[in-house]
Amino acid sequence: MNYIEKIQQSITENRSCLSVGLDPNLDRIPASLKEKTSGDEELVYTFLETVIDVTSDHCAAYKPNLGFFEALGKNGLEVFERVIAHIPSDKIIIADAKRGDISSTASHYAKAYFEEFDVDALTINPLMGFESLDPFLNYSNKGIYTLALTSNPGAEDFLMQPFANESSMAAYISKKLALLQEDSNTHLGMVVGATKAHTVKNVISHHRKGSLLIPGIGAQGGSVQELAETLQGHQGLPLINSSRSILYAGENKKDWKLAIAEQARITNELLEPITKTYV
Amino acid sequence: MNYIEKIQQSITENRSCLSVGLDPNLDRIPASLKEKTSGDEELVYTFLETVIDVTSDHCAAYKPNLGFFEALGKNGLEVFERVIAHIPSDKIIIADAKRGDISSTASHYAKAYFEEFDVDALTINPLMGFESLDPFLNYSNKGIYTLALTSNPGAEDFLMQPFANESSMAAYISKKLALLQEDSNTHLGMVVGATKAHTVKNVISHHRKGSLLIPGIGAQGGSVQELAETLQGHQGLPLINSSRSILYAGENKKDWKLAIAEQARITNELLEPITKTYV
Repeated sequence: MNYIEKIQQSITENRSCLSVGLDPNLDRIPASLKEKTSGDEELVYTFLETVIDVTSDHCAAYKPNLGFFEALGKNGLEVFERVIAHIPSDKIIIADAKRGDISSTASHYAKAYFEEFDVDALTINPLMGFESLDPFLNYSNKGIYTLALTSNPGAEDFLMQPFANESSMAAYISKKLALLQEDSNTHLGMVVGATKAHTVKNVISHHRKGSLLIPGIGAQGGSVQELAETLQGHQGLPLINSSRSILYAGENKKDWKLAIAEQARITNELLEPITKTYV
Repeated sequence: MNYIEKIQQSITENRSCLSVGLDPNLDRIPASLKEKTSGDEELVYTFLETVIDVTSDHCAAYKPNLGFFEALGKNGLEVFERVIAHIPSDKIIIADAKRGDISSTASHYAKAYFEEFDVDALTINPLMGFESLDPFLNYSNKGIYTLALTSNPGAEDFLMQPFANESSMAAYISKKLALLQEDSNTHLGMVVGATKAHTVKNVISHHRKGSLLIPGIGAQGGSVQELAETLQGHQGLPLINSSRSILYAGENKKDWKLAIAEQARITNELLEPITKTYV
């Protein structure tokens, strides 16, 4: 099954376009759980295991964020591996690592995420040039999401600036991805932030078949209605990510598991106007 | 001791501007060593331990490259930690991770490299905007090297393009780093590739006090004489990195340790026209 078929199946079977971001911040994990576990690694694993258990009815994908695992130190990748092993097999797993390098370093990142950890998809930072994508282009059952237009204010420093005769650097990246896709076995998706609707519409128009990883709904304040309109006519499949608003919905609450489950359910329901067009 | 003092001391005491890149590619580690060790992790550790032992008389810094450690899978960061623990204390350790993210993810990368692994410096990818640097700016004894102008052909896709009224994106980044340095406790250096002398001269002129991490000498073909001229008048301290040409100097040779030591010695000697101006 190739990556597009995998996402399509996951969206249909789960009736969801939601990706739950796994960003385990030690300062925000429920205190009651801290009392029951010994050590940061066990705490993070137990927290995420529970998050996965109580949210899996309401999402199509999980997006573990490598920064939070590396912050655990030398055993961080072991925790990462245990966490992804706990994700049900009908879900897409996107490693949010934003790796970007060239030559044999890039090959080793491809080996790490597509072979050792064997996730479905990886986020990529293209700043060093499109050659940084080369080692990722021959995995027919995998996908990469290249940063095109992120949802943070700093997107204005680079990605939203006019670039190389295009209206934005993001548009330039999107156009190039559409070209590269013609010779790539790996599916080439993009990260486009939900908070920049007008620019997003232009950016994705250059790569109509590109799957989208969309942050910025929820804690970052993007509107679902606006996003639904933006996506009209786009052929690539969207996964819409929410991290903190779900993960920490139970912060300071006694029944934190229920609060997380409920927030995932509500977020997924909120996305129904988008989901229904893809199932 | 702040980061600039640390580099200055390391360059002076070692009479060297050389940084040895630690990019352990399993396919290129001497066969005789493979027979003596059990498992990839032990092989990589033993190889790099030897590399460090035989090169430490000829360099000021080591630059382990995270991609190669992550490719080892779940125990990769443990190997990374053991390797950096073996580096003598008079050397600078630069984690070449090219991390780039925002908000709490960026904070967790800072925590990972400046607290958990406690290296001296980290390479950073600024594509998501300058806010991605924020969590790194308050470590008075640390440095970051932001990608400005890399030495690979793909640098022409982004970093060498005209950008925001500057002659190149690299120049724009350099200017911004000089501004940010005014309010930063952390030293803000840059990565600038030795293969692009003319552009480098312009780029570094915008951030005169910025330390430089310079790849592209050796296997990538940059000239030392040209680099020495490029650096004239620049106040920041250079570390000139060589990875593959030293690491694999002993490939297919019986006395591979001697070949590596000799290549490090020769490379360091080659850099003497630059080194002498900084000791």
